[in-house]
Amino acid sequence: MITDTISFRVRYNEVDRMGYVHHGNYAAYFEMGRTELMRKHGLNYKEMEDNGVILPLSEFYVKYYSPALYDDNLSLETILTSYSGVRLNFEYILKNQHGDLIAEGKTPLVFVNNTSRKPMRPPKELIEKISSYF
Amino acid sequence: MITDTISFRVRYNEVDRMGYVHHGNYAAYFEMGRTELMRKHGLNYKEMEDNGVILPLSEFYVKYYSPALYDDNLSLETILTSYSGVRLNFEYILKNQHGDLIAEGKTPLVFVNNTSRKPMRPPKELIEKISSYF
Amino acid sequence: MITDTISFRVRYNEVDRMGYVHHGNYAAYFEMGRTELMRKHGLNYKEMEDNGVILPLSEFYVKYYSPALYDDNLSLETILTSYSGVRLNFEYILKNQHGDLIAEGKTPLVFVNNTSRKPMRPPKELIEKISSYF
Amino acid sequence: MITDTISFRVRYNEVDRMGYVHHGNYAAYFEMGRTELMRKHGLNYKEMEDNGVILPLSEFYVKYYSPALYDDNLSLETILTSYSGVRLNFEYILKNQHGDLIAEGKTPLVFVNNTSRKPMRPPKELIEKISSYF
Repeated sequence: MITDTISFRVRYNEVDRMGYVHHGNYAAYFEMGRTELMRKHGLNYKEMEDNGVILPLSEFYVKYYSPALYDDNLSLETILTSYSGVRLNFEYILKNQHGDLIAEGKTPLVFVNNTSRKPMRPPKELIEKISSYF
Repeated sequence: MITDTISFRVRYNEVDRMGYVHHGNYAAYFEMGRTELMRKHGLNYKEMEDNGVILPLSEFYVKYYSPALYDDNLSLETILTSYSGVRLNFEYILKNQHGDLIAEGKTPLVFVNNTSRKPMRPPKELIEKISSYF
Repeated sequence: MITDTISFRVRYNEVDRMGYVHHGNYAAYFEMGRTELMRKHGLNYKEMEDNGVILPLSEFYVKYYSPALYDDNLSLETILTSYSGVRLNFEYILKNQHGDLIAEGKTPLVFVNNTSRKPMRPPKELIEKISSYF
Repeated sequence: MITDTISFRVRYNEVDRMGYVHHGNYAAYFEMGRTELMRKHGLNYKEMEDNGVILPLSEFYVKYYSPALYDDNLSLETILTSYSGVRLNFEYILKNQHGDLIAEGKTPLVFVNNTSRKPMRPPKELIEKISSYF
């Protein structure tokens, strides 16, 4: 299991007319969480993609507990819970500056060859780095 | 059960550097589907909200089958599968112009009083309109 | 001069906590306007890009007169005002369903070779189609 | 004149199929710049808005020099160049991690009473804080 926590402010444009972070914006938050978790473990997502390996989501799930509001200082814990074959499974726990649970999420991602657009086994370097944590 | 189908083009800004509709944008698509389904059955979402009833999501789930691409002419079927107490359950089936299945989704929504921010029973008018379909 | 008008509804996720369409979303609206103007004159933006010609903006200007609101049925007039060498100049007039002027915009765009990322003269086919209107 | 500089990474969802930050996303960047400049000078934008004063843009101008790319570490200088009556004028200079100029922008903003939706003179506290810099 690999975990990493980032924090960031809610931007004005992310909030809807209810005053809540629009539910679709959690996708961007979780994506930042994944990118930073990978970076801190020596894996640069951009380089991987530039080298022909893309990592699209196969599913996206969020459970909303409490709304996030404009200018909230959110804390996002990202957890790489498992990997197997062509797949990485991430989970997310999002809280606000008061410690309130905002949302939880899950996203399985699949390694895909950017030329063939077919699932592929991930780069060896990545398997080795990830394996050392499990 | 109430169903409705809309179609729309993928916008340029919705597509990421993989060339795929970014997975977070499906939230906006499903939201359009809900709004139009309600409109066609005599319910104006904006008026409801202006009258103090908001309808946030409690969960958001998407399963991605095939990427949607820039300029694709997508067809979205929205299904109000059930309602009960304070909750409406919607499901979604998204296809492209070739009939390929792009994604399926589920979003339970909860009626909330915009002043108290507490769950509430939906407006009577809405219950009556919906009940006639179930 | 080439003009084209499209109409579309404001989406829920496009509106901010003031209840206004967030000012950054006009970029997506104008982009739809350009794409549809080109399509109606036999030019497919996606095909052009797939053939290695991209068309980034060099500037973006909007003057906001009146806010656009959720569920408004907007009408966007797009005008290709001039072209010269490597550049196309578009202007935009956005109105709501009451005829109120919402915004006006201007976007010069530059033809760029997607491989070299340098400005280039546009495809001959495109020059010919455009020239016939000026 | 008041200036402030922030830095932040380009998010995956902000980049389009050209591999460039989509031009509409600069609006969100500049908005972060304004919010943080105000915060560092004792003005909380959220509180101001919660107290009934909103600050919509009257114009938005960007000149794009060089594309911003995914994962770039951007540096944004925000400058409050002048204020007068009901208006604040901000300018922006955006650079990447190599010091390349990415874009420059200008946004005049107008103080508006959130109830009447009419322009208003800004809160006294804000005038005093701003005046001390000019």
